[in-house]
Amino acid sequence: MINIGIIGYGYWGPNLVRNFAETRGATVAAVADLDTEKLAIVNRRFPAVKTTTDYRELLADPAIDAIAIATPVSTHFELGLAALRAGKHLWLEKPMTETSQQARQLVDEAEKRQLVLIVDHTFIYTGAVAKMAEIIQASELGRIYYYDSIRVNLGLFQRDVSVISDLAVHDFSILDHLLDEHPVAVSASGTNHFPGTPENLAYVTLFYESGTIAHANVSWLAPVKVRQILIGGSKKMITYDDLEPSEKIKVYDKGVDFTDDPQKIHEMRVGYRTGDMWAPRLAVSEALGVEGLHFIDCIENRKVPKTDGQLGLRVVELIEAASKSMRAKGETVYITRQLA
Amino acid sequence: MINIGIIGYGYWGPNLVRNFAETRGATVAAVADLDTEKLAIVNRRFPAVKTTTDYRELLADPAIDAIAIATPVSTHFELGLAALRAGKHLWLEKPMTETSQQARQLVDEAEKRQLVLIVDHTFIYTGAVAKMAEIIQASELGRIYYYDSIRVNLGLFQRDVSVISDLAVHDFSILDHLLDEHPVAVSASGTNHFPGTPENLAYVTLFYESGTIAHANVSWLAPVKVRQILIGGSKKMITYDDLEPSEKIKVYDKGVDFTDDPQKIHEMRVGYRTGDMWAPRLAVSEALGVEGLHFIDCIENRKVPKTDGQLGLRVVELIEAASKSMRAKGETVYITRQLA
Amino acid sequence: MINIGIIGYGYWGPNLVRNFAETRGATVAAVADLDTEKLAIVNRRFPAVKTTTDYRELLADPAIDAIAIATPVSTHFELGLAALRAGKHLWLEKPMTETSQQARQLVDEAEKRQLVLIVDHTFIYTGAVAKMAEIIQASELGRIYYYDSIRVNLGLFQRDVSVISDLAVHDFSILDHLLDEHPVAVSASGTNHFPGTPENLAYVTLFYESGTIAHANVSWLAPVKVRQILIGGSKKMITYDDLEPSEKIKVYDKGVDFTDDPQKIHEMRVGYRTGDMWAPRLAVSEALGVEGLHFIDCIENRKVPKTDGQLGLRVVELIEAASKSMRAKGETVYITRQLA
Amino acid sequence: MINIGIIGYGYWGPNLVRNFAETRGATVAAVADLDTEKLAIVNRRFPAVKTTTDYRELLADPAIDAIAIATPVSTHFELGLAALRAGKHLWLEKPMTETSQQARQLVDEAEKRQLVLIVDHTFIYTGAVAKMAEIIQASELGRIYYYDSIRVNLGLFQRDVSVISDLAVHDFSILDHLLDEHPVAVSASGTNHFPGTPENLAYVTLFYESGTIAHANVSWLAPVKVRQILIGGSKKMITYDDLEPSEKIKVYDKGVDFTDDPQKIHEMRVGYRTGDMWAPRLAVSEALGVEGLHFIDCIENRKVPKTDGQLGLRVVELIEAASKSMRAKGETVYITRQLA
Repeated sequence: MINIGIIGYGYWGPNLVRNFAETRGATVAAVADLDTEKLAIVNRRFPAVKTTTDYRELLADPAIDAIAIATPVSTHFELGLAALRAGKHLWLEKPMTETSQQARQLVDEAEKRQLVLIVDHTFIYTGAVAKMAEIIQASELGRIYYYDSIRVNLGLFQRDVSVISDLAVHDFSILDHLLDEHPVAVSASGTNHFPGTPENLAYVTLFYESGTIAHANVSWLAPVKVRQILIGGSKKMITYDDLEPSEKIKVYDKGVDFTDDPQKIHEMRVGYRTGDMWAPRLAVSEALGVEGLHFIDCIENRKVPKTDGQLGLRVVELIEAASKSMRAKGETVYITRQLA
Repeated sequence: MINIGIIGYGYWGPNLVRNFAETRGATVAAVADLDTEKLAIVNRRFPAVKTTTDYRELLADPAIDAIAIATPVSTHFELGLAALRAGKHLWLEKPMTETSQQARQLVDEAEKRQLVLIVDHTFIYTGAVAKMAEIIQASELGRIYYYDSIRVNLGLFQRDVSVISDLAVHDFSILDHLLDEHPVAVSASGTNHFPGTPENLAYVTLFYESGTIAHANVSWLAPVKVRQILIGGSKKMITYDDLEPSEKIKVYDKGVDFTDDPQKIHEMRVGYRTGDMWAPRLAVSEALGVEGLHFIDCIENRKVPKTDGQLGLRVVELIEAASKSMRAKGETVYITRQLA
Repeated sequence: MINIGIIGYGYWGPNLVRNFAETRGATVAAVADLDTEKLAIVNRRFPAVKTTTDYRELLADPAIDAIAIATPVSTHFELGLAALRAGKHLWLEKPMTETSQQARQLVDEAEKRQLVLIVDHTFIYTGAVAKMAEIIQASELGRIYYYDSIRVNLGLFQRDVSVISDLAVHDFSILDHLLDEHPVAVSASGTNHFPGTPENLAYVTLFYESGTIAHANVSWLAPVKVRQILIGGSKKMITYDDLEPSEKIKVYDKGVDFTDDPQKIHEMRVGYRTGDMWAPRLAVSEALGVEGLHFIDCIENRKVPKTDGQLGLRVVELIEAASKSMRAKGETVYITRQLA
Repeated sequence: MINIGIIGYGYWGPNLVRNFAETRGATVAAVADLDTEKLAIVNRRFPAVKTTTDYRELLADPAIDAIAIATPVSTHFELGLAALRAGKHLWLEKPMTETSQQARQLVDEAEKRQLVLIVDHTFIYTGAVAKMAEIIQASELGRIYYYDSIRVNLGLFQRDVSVISDLAVHDFSILDHLLDEHPVAVSASGTNHFPGTPENLAYVTLFYESGTIAHANVSWLAPVKVRQILIGGSKKMITYDDLEPSEKIKVYDKGVDFTDDPQKIHEMRVGYRTGDMWAPRLAVSEALGVEGLHFIDCIENRKVPKTDGQLGLRVVELIEAASKSMRAKGETVYITRQLA
């Protein structure tokens, strides 16, 4: 049984508490938050869970094996480092830290102490992403030509992070999980329509060595909600609509072939191939539940999490690079990966 | 009655011939094409129309008032210039020319000779774009925050022009028509997945002085066809789905207001406003028919076309700038407008 | 403050307990269920609520003002009658009773004792149905030509009632609420595909004196879930798609006009009118919450519920008539309304 | 080469002329219509085709092998009988005749004279229906539980036939083609909302010996256009949306299994099975072209058409039975099949 202490009971913390309360192999030992009203809610809902306004009590408690941090991103580094130094396994909300330098330091600290460090990129644990990974790993798509994502809706405007950190972060982690290469350059554009606030709309392009290109269109200012990804391969193509109640993933047997047929000269000797479409059944387990079990499994069996600190670090590097490019109206920013 | 000579009977030429044959006030006098088999089709369908493989016969014919050119873009400049010098009003397919320098020269020539020069940016004459222009001109959207377009499908790959010239060109003309300002900078990214072919996928961002941002996502390599535009304003927002059989345009009474409510601190004191949605009835006349009548009206009454050479030139300037940026992985390209 | 006792903590009971626990003016005093494991759940979630396996304790408790019954329909009559005789106001799940005779007796009993009797036809309290009622009462649709409903999905098969009682019951109550007349005849067809089980698929047509016709297509055996209603009027028409996250209700300015134009003889001198479409914003309050407040208001202020026993009775009469017709392969069954 | 004479150049006749003009193995020899203006259109479009106002000239012409009749249904019997008696193969628009007695007589006459008699139930020749037939014949659906169709839109009101003859007729022919049994009883309800006109809205249920039930919801008075069919089987289920540009047919690996699991008692021990969905690629040939070739093939090789007179007769019998039931508010009408 892994005892977990959770720091932060604001927007996402309650989901973590509920989730770990229901995760086989885990116990929620304590919750820390600066707001005593929030702690009162914890007391009512989970009478057995200890509460405190001082997170250091959790770090000092030898009965606690792991710490989950769901505070504003600006505090992730300090709290995370303290948890690792206290010998606790660490669950960090996304994005991992404000800077890649901080992320690198956490990764180092966890490795040095042989502690499990997971970053909560929840999407990786959904049935949809798992199915796409399975399809891609089976080479069903062939060579990956592109990844194209749209994540737009009205709100929720964030106070401390831009829409890239809030929404494109999902695409950065999904791409890291699906592809077997990392982007070499980024170009992003975006803007904040309201003075003194973070960017609320952004377009990010990632370039890969292999020729694959990825794009994320993210916005808090759209009249309709869209969560749609297209992935084009040389053999097949995928659409992923996360708002579909079922059939989220569709695999199209479609593609392009270049021919020598002189009659097709107008169309550049291109042939279009169109076959069946197939919507595989997806696992319906809640992603956070799957991730919770995975965290426990990694702790108990010394495994590396699917969304480990290295992945979290690469995501932060991309946020940094994309933000830098965005503030320079699209200027190419090359990713120079410093090993953590 | 305006007599029209049409040069080029390939992909789009047949539409022009059919359209002008049905346009009140216009007569199709002659068709020129290098391919005699295509001319034979004209003879069968339109026995009264003269045909020739030498376009110069059309220019030399004093009975012909106007020339419509539907040949590959690489020939637009030479043919267009010859037509203007022969004193003919000119209808040019889009994009107007290969270079902005050429476009500028055609504009000059047409102005000098007081001839009508229209560029066939057909979308401007659709009921949908007309309705959006009407709504925006009535200030119903308030300040325009963004324009976001997706035009993707499988094929048709073009041999001589990139997907920007083929698809983003529609957004460039629509934006020029809808907004009362022109972009000051462009950042684009894109790629060709097949060596030796034009770019088949591109992302283009346009920056405006006012803070408005526009984006076009265009591709010939998507498994599904999408033609969708979002326009966000400070008061209302529009969605335009061109594949909807009816209700193409939807106007959402939605928006964001910043408040002083301290309870909303997590959400940055933002309030979201959600009201009715309204789908106005659109004119159902075929756009090309509307445009044909407009061309005749401009010739007869010395009016300036909605899609005149100046608009066509600005579109070509954007194609140039976007292509330059795309080939430099998103590098910002500033638009320095030389007066035509 | 109205003290409520709830009988039945199976499928729907937990919703009632949660709802009344959050309803201003109401207190959940006690819950009765035969299953002690279920009562243990109540104890954990609502420590202040008394629990018992003997519902008679609730009836005998003078502090309890009202009883809500969420048990199988076969027990509604007996439990409801006992509650009324104990002087309690009564909330009954739908359908009200197994037979119209029973429903009539409950209505009589409640009237005699001047107790509030509400039947939980929740749909009547949704923002969507409220908006449709508002539109119809304002005569915006003109004369109502038809009401056409589709409620199909895979499962949940019911053990004790047919799909008419489970799904068409919603249409019966909505029609009763929207129209100012009651059906005079019913024809229904349907079948059970599995021996020994209730009908799992049915088609019900209701005929009205005015010429209005209503139809419900209900099934537990469809591969996709559909919840869609069309209402056609002489002036406008409505679509109501309950699965749409927003824009559930759309009002179409569409219709048919008969003309004297002899050119239209092929089309029977019919003209089709097509105008704007409008999707009004709907109230987002949870229907059960609205209904809870309404129940309290009816008790405190001696009002008649929107979904009173008379409405509940008419719905049961329609279920009876439709079931009779269905078992006779569509035979017309006339509704002879006996006054309660 | 089969020479075809076409009688009737109103709504559908032009499609037949165009289609047979392009059908390999067929020649349009002559067109008859009472309206000389319509014949003038034929002359312009097809100079080689003879035209006449007297259809008897076509019957008397020994060079004509087959007659296609696209006149109002009230004239089908007389014209069809005359054509058969003149020794011509016969193509009849749907519905075949006004009465089943007439249809039976035409079937007899064609059989006696060994002439091909095809009824133009075009849907049978679409890629979508062909694919559904292929799937059903391969027993992929298992036992067929139901067929549920919705065909509604605004207009076109017909002058001489009800919406059953106009729209439900498609379902009657599709069902005849897909299932290996014929309905034994019909219950229909419907109404005309405009005095003196045919019924413009109808609901038709067909009962089969095996327990299969079929339903068609047809209307000329809906604000939206719907063309959707569900077919439920014991193993799989199909949806067919004819308005989808692609993926018209979807096959769902979904179903219901009755179990002995006592935990599922609330749900009647029913288990729901949900697997992949699959949208097979459909043939894209135009249905009318396929049907034209099939007609020629049947004439040249003495084959029986897929939509022969017997199928046409059964469809007319269903129209008769459904109309009779509809006028008696749903009264069950049993189909007593008299052999033709």
